[in-house]
Amino acid sequence: MSQKNTYDVVVIGSGPGGYSAALRAAQLGFDTALVEKEKTLGGVCLNVGCIPSKALLDSSERYHQARHKMAEHGIEIKDVRLDLETMMSRKNKVVEELTHNLRELLERGKIEIIHGTARVEAPDRVHVTRNEETGSGDRELILPARYILVATGSEPNPLPDLDFDGKHIISSTDALALDTVPKRLGIVGAGYVGLELGSVWQRLGSEVTVIEMLPQAAGNADGQVARTLMRLLKAQGMDIRLKTTVTKAAVKDNQVEVSVKAKDASDTLSFDRLLVSVGRRPRLDGLGLDELGVETDPDTGRIVVDAAFRTRVPSIYAIGDIIAGPMLAHKASAEGAAAAECMAGLPGDVNYDTIPSVIYTSPQAAGAGMTQEDAKKRGIPFLTGTYPFSGTGRARCLGETDGFVKLIVHKTSDRILGVHIIGPSASEMIAEGVAAMEAGMTATQIASMVHSHPTFSEAIQEAAAAVPKKQWQP
Amino acid sequence: MSQKNTYDVVVIGSGPGGYSAALRAAQLGFDTALVEKEKTLGGVCLNVGCIPSKALLDSSERYHQARHKMAEHGIEIKDVRLDLETMMSRKNKVVEELTHNLRELLERGKIEIIHGTARVEAPDRVHVTRNEETGSGDRELILPARYILVATGSEPNPLPDLDFDGKHIISSTDALALDTVPKRLGIVGAGYVGLELGSVWQRLGSEVTVIEMLPQAAGNADGQVARTLMRLLKAQGMDIRLKTTVTKAAVKDNQVEVSVKAKDASDTLSFDRLLVSVGRRPRLDGLGLDELGVETDPDTGRIVVDAAFRTRVPSIYAIGDIIAGPMLAHKASAEGAAAAECMAGLPGDVNYDTIPSVIYTSPQAAGAGMTQEDAKKRGIPFLTGTYPFSGTGRARCLGETDGFVKLIVHKTSDRILGVHIIGPSASEMIAEGVAAMEAGMTATQIASMVHSHPTFSEAIQEAAAAVPKKQWQP
Repeated sequence: MSQKNTYDVVVIGSGPGGYSAALRAAQLGFDTALVEKEKTLGGVCLNVGCIPSKALLDSSERYHQARHKMAEHGIEIKDVRLDLETMMSRKNKVVEELTHNLRELLERGKIEIIHGTARVEAPDRVHVTRNEETGSGDRELILPARYILVATGSEPNPLPDLDFDGKHIISSTDALALDTVPKRLGIVGAGYVGLELGSVWQRLGSEVTVIEMLPQAAGNADGQVARTLMRLLKAQGMDIRLKTTVTKAAVKDNQVEVSVKAKDASDTLSFDRLLVSVGRRPRLDGLGLDELGVETDPDTGRIVVDAAFRTRVPSIYAIGDIIAGPMLAHKASAEGAAAAECMAGLPGDVNYDTIPSVIYTSPQAAGAGMTQEDAKKRGIPFLTGTYPFSGTGRARCLGETDGFVKLIVHKTSDRILGVHIIGPSASEMIAEGVAAMEAGMTATQIASMVHSHPTFSEAIQEAAAAVPKKQWQP
Repeated sequence: MSQKNTYDVVVIGSGPGGYSAALRAAQLGFDTALVEKEKTLGGVCLNVGCIPSKALLDSSERYHQARHKMAEHGIEIKDVRLDLETMMSRKNKVVEELTHNLRELLERGKIEIIHGTARVEAPDRVHVTRNEETGSGDRELILPARYILVATGSEPNPLPDLDFDGKHIISSTDALALDTVPKRLGIVGAGYVGLELGSVWQRLGSEVTVIEMLPQAAGNADGQVARTLMRLLKAQGMDIRLKTTVTKAAVKDNQVEVSVKAKDASDTLSFDRLLVSVGRRPRLDGLGLDELGVETDPDTGRIVVDAAFRTRVPSIYAIGDIIAGPMLAHKASAEGAAAAECMAGLPGDVNYDTIPSVIYTSPQAAGAGMTQEDAKKRGIPFLTGTYPFSGTGRARCLGETDGFVKLIVHKTSDRILGVHIIGPSASEMIAEGVAAMEAGMTATQIASMVHSHPTFSEAIQEAAAAVPKKQWQP
């Protein structure tokens, strides 16, 4: 490590937001350093988030398929057994490969990688010390910087009065590394983390109960998508209880006893493990930003930035989960790249109106743009067009006919305002919807655009064709 | 069946082109009849083409996965056996469901379905007789019509001097219904039909040899995609021989002896079955179109139409495989709908520049717009951007890292001219590329559009970002 006298940009945090920012900054000619407090690069997403969860979702889905979905295809399988240790090792290997590749990518980009805990000492200076907790970093450093970009991400919220113990009361990080399949798994929070990890363990054999305070699962998804997803997950055996709160939880005899309260009924449930996935909070402790005058929103605790991702201290930028908006890896990456462009005087920009989000359940759910509820709330005149996958040849061939595509379309201009998909290829299909919205395409255009046959994407075309004819059209 | 005195539109052929035309015609208020010479609706695509092949591709891929791709995920399977009869029954069931649904759809659309063989007797009259070969139709009918739309599709070309016998020398139709797995399967023609059906039988246990006259497999695919696909299929064990012609073939002792000739070498190969998939020819025999003055292209044998899909006889329209262009179901559907709109005086139109095509091998290959070769031949100044799936987290999670995305981009305007994908989700991903081209989007726009993480579609974004910086840019 050859420490420079001064840097153009010091990025704090090597998650998708931080590494994208560092890469773009270096591409634009900035001398760039990237500080990471953990021993491995990649942040939550690569190490204990998107990547390991998707690896386990894939492996567990294969296990489910092997056990239940082969006979109808004329594939006779006698005996299917789970070797959880191998499944976990594969997941760890995927994470190791990707963090390794990320290091190579950053090194090729001439970015100086510095391990240790960062503190912003002054608007132009970052202090790095050895992180005793993670053993990351080996010496004390002062990094003088023209620009500082904070991309420290978020961590799971605990329940009030119920701290994570890593054994019975577990976070998503723990739930990605269990060494046995819990017989009964309780999950507090029916957001995408709860539903994805619930799916993993249910497929591997757990009885899963999900407790959600709100009247809807799947967070901000379109209501129709959320209701359908809940119905399908329930049919898979997941017990999902909406409008239900946890009133008490305690560990007793190696079990978690949870008291829950719904509208008119109370219940006490007993689990081997309780996964708490009730949202995430920005990770800002110990950075010293308050002292320097960086403003945070008193309601959300997130840093306030301008359109160029600058905090109230002009040399300090912030992106990703620590600023407003959905806590999504690709939102952070887009902001990271845009922030670096803004530092270079280029018009870096993120279109927040079309950021897609995906839930990797089976089937998947994906959405971008306005939900029906958003459009209603904002008083925008809209029409909808929906089409079920059961109507497509592709879904029939694969035997995966659940779900539908739903478009929200402006009533007079015919422009597409929202695309919502629940179905097996939703995660990839949503990209067509985002492109259509980015380009300002109309439902009529998508309806007449040629889609390959047989594909799931034909349902997007059919949904566009199903938008009711406008009165003022010929 | 209540036969009307006269129809606005009589459509001949109920494949994707014909049924789309009939549905749109009926939607537009035309009294519409649809004539089908087979007993089931849907044409080649539903009965002996896209749909059954994709059903078998899926089932055979599952068999392959069960045998070879479970252990690494920690799924232990003792004994995997193939029950070909059940696999074929499932395929037949998928076809039956879809043809049944199509009938319901047409009936709901108030389209009169007439079975029998059609002959266009006059520019305003179709004569239908019982088809003795298929047993379809029960009486002789005269259908007076304002417009006649011919959508009779295509049938496999035989090799010269080597007719299909349905047992040893087989067509794609036969290859979808074999009752045993051939030990050695020979395939003449490395287009999408040969590669898809070769994949099916290879996964189920056949030794597959593919013989292709041309220097490239995969038809008109981008050269780089075609070469990669060939390399990957060869690694799966498929023996693909390019620039090789069949000089002689004969059935002897229940085997097909095939003499082949490459540049400097000759060889004699022996197969249990020989699939001949060397393209398709338009099906126009017995329609009586010549006599009425409908013109065909002397080189291709296809019907000549104007921009409104009208033949030289103004009341007779033609679409799909019997007119110029790629013989693809979705091309025919788009033309069918557009032709009906043209009959109604609406501006029906098909954008031939962005019609996607997909090969459902593993991995899939999909392309739309110009290939690199097209752009070169047309003298269009272009740049390319490529990105390998091995660089994406999604591909790593799923362990499916082969392939890449390649964009062809106009050198000065930055507009996307072609999108070519080889990878596991290519069939769905291509829709984003088509939308981008339809909307005239630039590579810069796609590079800054937010793509969900982790998805395969991120490779499209990265490929767009990899297009070399233009000199004239800031």
